[in-house]
Amino acid sequence: MTSLNAPDVKALIFDVFGTLVDWRTCIAREVAQWLAPEGIELDGLRFADDWRAQYQPAMEKVRAGLIPFCKLDQLHRHNLDIVLRAHGLEAVAESTRRELNLAWHRLDAWPDVAAGLAALRQRYLLAPCSNGNISLMVDLARRNGWHWDAILGAEVARDYKPKPAVYLAACAAFDLEPHEVMMVAAHSSDLQAAAECGLATCFVARPDEYGPGAGESEPTCPVDVRVGSLLELALERQPQAQNG
Amino acid sequence: MTSLNAPDVKALIFDVFGTLVDWRTCIAREVAQWLAPEGIELDGLRFADDWRAQYQPAMEKVRAGLIPFCKLDQLHRHNLDIVLRAHGLEAVAESTRRELNLAWHRLDAWPDVAAGLAALRQRYLLAPCSNGNISLMVDLARRNGWHWDAILGAEVARDYKPKPAVYLAACAAFDLEPHEVMMVAAHSSDLQAAAECGLATCFVARPDEYGPGAGESEPTCPVDVRVGSLLELALERQPQAQNG
Repeated sequence: MTSLNAPDVKALIFDVFGTLVDWRTCIAREVAQWLAPEGIELDGLRFADDWRAQYQPAMEKVRAGLIPFCKLDQLHRHNLDIVLRAHGLEAVAESTRRELNLAWHRLDAWPDVAAGLAALRQRYLLAPCSNGNISLMVDLARRNGWHWDAILGAEVARDYKPKPAVYLAACAAFDLEPHEVMMVAAHSSDLQAAAECGLATCFVARPDEYGPGAGESEPTCPVDVRVGSLLELALERQPQAQNG
Repeated sequence: MTSLNAPDVKALIFDVFGTLVDWRTCIAREVAQWLAPEGIELDGLRFADDWRAQYQPAMEKVRAGLIPFCKLDQLHRHNLDIVLRAHGLEAVAESTRRELNLAWHRLDAWPDVAAGLAALRQRYLLAPCSNGNISLMVDLARRNGWHWDAILGAEVARDYKPKPAVYLAACAAFDLEPHEVMMVAAHSSDLQAAAECGLATCFVARPDEYGPGAGESEPTCPVDVRVGSLLELALERQPQAQNG
């Protein structure tokens, strides 16, 4: 291969939950850890799935203008209270709820991410473009050894993906046109929305995001690049030797 | 010394122009470089001072609500046109003006900054809290080898220092109370405004900012910490051994 798709790209922006971090098994672990001291045993993976299931409906209220923008931490906390109630766990203490809500700040990356981002940073500006708030992104970067150029995404745009404002605010912060920015995500809906704003797109397969084989292994929309890991993306985006 | 001022501090936020980078000699160099090909010779330092003299009046229009928030790059460009006119240089080409305006993205740090920030990052969250826009901060960080946790400041707050909203937005982005954040600056006016918002303050002496001996060598307001360099600050903020 001697030519790249999306040759103008100068910055990569990343979805985070599911694309860079394995939220499901980490949340399950944290739920078990924080609830065990209260004598509660439960299926952590099911609790994680139930908590995550409240994610889109909560953001939809902001997107639709029904409630003002607030940080994802606040939506996560509201959702946690809903899920605890649904599991019959109303008795969980306020202090435990506060700590458990910060579980989203303590998620671990998929194994390829730290090295992949370090390699990609040699050629591109890098930022998260997540629905997570700035402090959440800061904590994940510290925990997992990532070096972002800036923290972009929902809190900077004051709205939630897939609203166009979030992708366009990230491009504008870097002073780049949409075609100079590539959205990297494991979710076709995110990439479709970015493409509609004019961004280049890269699908990263995370087939185990929702449990073994239960994530997206193939995109359901056209994308510019499709890879199995960030290391593969770094290799893909190497300058290619011209063949004579 | 066995105790520190401002012991609760978890994050340091930094003024950038003058505190971290030597804008004056760098702008003078860039002005000379970009105008020489057009056959223009001039006193670069005087031009730099004249350009910088337009900085506060331009931001004041935003602070006062006379014009909507716009990036500092846009204010710098408006100011550049004013200064070129004042120097009788209306003939300078549009393409040259565009490149020259980006000189603020190519400023060099004072010698202690890269090592000082790296040492401070071992103990604190770090972010710029500058009136410069995000892309300008990103470019300065890349050029000078800095690793920020986030880019905070005017563009995130949509207003300009010393308006309280800028300091308070930086604290809020880190989920910290003002007393948990220390503003680091070479300018008493910046520190005074941060202190009025409840932030801890550190004065860094940059006595040569406006030419030899023409910067602030001592703060004109009370501060929590006063140092001559970021390396001194890193040493100052080491955990101290308890004397028995």
